[in-house]
Amino acid sequence: MADKDVRDIRRTYDHDVLLEEDAGMDPFALFSRWFDQALASEMEGTAMTLSTGGEHPSSRTVLLKEFRNGEFVFFTNYASQKGQAISNHPNVSLLFFWQTLQRQVRIQGQATKVSEQESVDYFQSRPFESQIGALASHQSDALVNREELDQRYEDLLEVYRNKTVPKPDHWGGYAVIPERIEFWQGRPSRLHDRLLYIKSGNNWQRKRLSP
Amino acid sequence: MADKDVRDIRRTYDHDVLLEEDAGMDPFALFSRWFDQALASEMEGTAMTLSTGGEHPSSRTVLLKEFRNGEFVFFTNYASQKGQAISNHPNVSLLFFWQTLQRQVRIQGQATKVSEQESVDYFQSRPFESQIGALASHQSDALVNREELDQRYEDLLEVYRNKTVPKPDHWGGYAVIPERIEFWQGRPSRLHDRLLYIKSGNNWQRKRLSP
Repeated sequence: MADKDVRDIRRTYDHDVLLEEDAGMDPFALFSRWFDQALASEMEGTAMTLSTGGEHPSSRTVLLKEFRNGEFVFFTNYASQKGQAISNHPNVSLLFFWQTLQRQVRIQGQATKVSEQESVDYFQSRPFESQIGALASHQSDALVNREELDQRYEDLLEVYRNKTVPKPDHWGGYAVIPERIEFWQGRPSRLHDRLLYIKSGNNWQRKRLSP
Repeated sequence: MADKDVRDIRRTYDHDVLLEEDAGMDPFALFSRWFDQALASEMEGTAMTLSTGGEHPSSRTVLLKEFRNGEFVFFTNYASQKGQAISNHPNVSLLFFWQTLQRQVRIQGQATKVSEQESVDYFQSRPFESQIGALASHQSDALVNREELDQRYEDLLEVYRNKTVPKPDHWGGYAVIPERIEFWQGRPSRLHDRLLYIKSGNNWQRKRLSP
């Protein structure tokens, strides 16, 4: 096993600054601006880390599929590891790390299932092959080998060719309703700008954190 | 607040495959190979999401500073939010998402402090300005405004000009000792390859997971 010392790898973060007068008091408006910029410059601007809690926290990348009414929506298999983790611990965190912009957005909030209709609508909007892929995969269960998955996929392709693929029962969306949103802009000498918004009733309080 | 529907943004993951015969039984050897490739092709190959658990999981990006003896080392302020979270819940997760390679590595394990000497050695290897930045920031505490931080930084620059900057008492490294490591390679039609290694005594067990 090769050991690897990468301690001298560091970038200077000097792309932008984040000051109170530009940030404003509405974290969703700020998120929208940053998100638009990320979509224009990032390879995977919609990618976010979803972390679930408890004694054994777990993280994976998911794609943000909708941002609406201050809720962050993604879709998954409710019976997957992450679905079970959310069922046990509905408080989750989301993290966007937009490298080209030297920015992070850290979100903490509660995940709740979206309506069955919304899940059906989104599932029907996906490409046929992705629908079949979702059907073929018993997410997070063990497989004997790759061929087992490929065979199931091929079989289902034949079954549903030229038909509407039904949304699997255990497949659907979650909306994360944030309680805390932190915006992080990298700055030189590790003196990064951090603005934290905390929900307070129907309003948001904002404070600057030490980097 | 602008709502944003990005449901039709999706990439086809077709860069590579991850099969058992190539992966082998040693997750550290596989990590080393993938890490080398990430360093060659990613803007921030050492960047990883550190997630802490409990009832309110929290995530942030940190930089991997050393990978040695199967341990993943990063440095921070022990008194920061993340230091306190680790103190309360030493089980953490790490996530590398290497977009150019369409790969993720998900790690779960326990974080333990590295030796004081190792922390001193690394601190002394950092650029002078970053050392002063660490000294100037009472990490995660609130600041009145940006100027408060800049002024403290400027003052400390003068104090330590041409001197050795002492490592702050509360600053140091953590080594994460993994219990589970999952390698994820994106594949078309969401039929991704996932190989999970689980520590079992001194050995690792490997299984393929449904995507």
